[in-house]
Amino acid sequence: SRELFVLTYGALVAQLCKDYEKDEDVNTCLDRMGYGIGVRLIDDFLAHSAVKKCRSYSETADMIAQVAFKMYLGVTPSVSCSSAAGNEFSLILDKNPLVDFVEELPAERASLCYCNLLCGVIRGALEMVHLAAEVTFLQDRLKGDAVTEIGITFLRKAEDRKHKRN
Amino acid sequence: SRELFVLTYGALVAQLCKDYEKDEDVNTCLDRMGYGIGVRLIDDFLAHSAVKKCRSYSETADMIAQVAFKMYLGVTPSVSCSSAAGNEFSLILDKNPLVDFVEELPAERASLCYCNLLCGVIRGALEMVHLAAEVTFLQDRLKGDAVTEIGITFLRKAEDRKHKRN
Repeated sequence: SRELFVLTYGALVAQLCKDYEKDEDVNTCLDRMGYGIGVRLIDDFLAHSAVKKCRSYSETADMIAQVAFKMYLGVTPSVSCSSAAGNEFSLILDKNPLVDFVEELPAERASLCYCNLLCGVIRGALEMVHLAAEVTFLQDRLKGDAVTEIGITFLRKAEDRKHKRN
Repeated sequence: SRELFVLTYGALVAQLCKDYEKDEDVNTCLDRMGYGIGVRLIDDFLAHSAVKKCRSYSETADMIAQVAFKMYLGVTPSVSCSSAAGNEFSLILDKNPLVDFVEELPAERASLCYCNLLCGVIRGALEMVHLAAEVTFLQDRLKGDAVTEIGITFLRKAEDRKHKRN
């Protein structure tokens, strides 16, 4: 049962909104906390998911959506690749369980990325398997968008860049 | 998979420790947050557990341990009644999943009730079914005790008191 988690997450966001006046600072804090969580959660994920090594960014994005989201949030976002270079992906959530108890953002918190913790979690977990990525919310139903969309941009590895230069 | 919840809870406690110097203030804050969560969680609990109305404090304590703890934390504490009056109960946890990632409390946080949110949750949920109770940690493995023990004292109902007086 996820409700206790979802409500506890709400209490965390509410506390940060008390602590920080600016939405941006709350977002940064949630992302940083999420990063710390992702760095630790990856061990649990690898232990319980029995997944094999991914051979492409595309496989990795599918794994996050189909295995990780399913395991930890009970939902499976759809995945689309959004760049010709093949390193940018969108996870699209029709339903976001983390906001089950949130009706809408208060007017004075219009820039809050309520679920920003998730971006940090993904970023932290990816870093532990040697994948650098930028992870941000691109759309958010809480802000009136039709869906919730998390963008993942895999950053070229240092080695790749070196190869190309040589 | 409970790990995301457990790690998020850890981030919440860490944030409160940043916010408040005194352990007592962190404990109070966790209890108050828990209360707010319990008040909302009870609807989910009643909807999903299909439990019947409890006819005694003893049944209520059993329900909390065997149904609610199982549902939300995946563990079943043992219950013992600790007063002749039949209104004080202990939930005894051999294993507390909320502290899975906590090795020990830092020396300067010796009075922290790390899981105090749970007390608030129980208190808030009970209040919604018209049961006033005091809920506190009596023992905590994080503090070197052999088990973790949550004490629930059901407070006499105002009506009961009136009846007795008449």
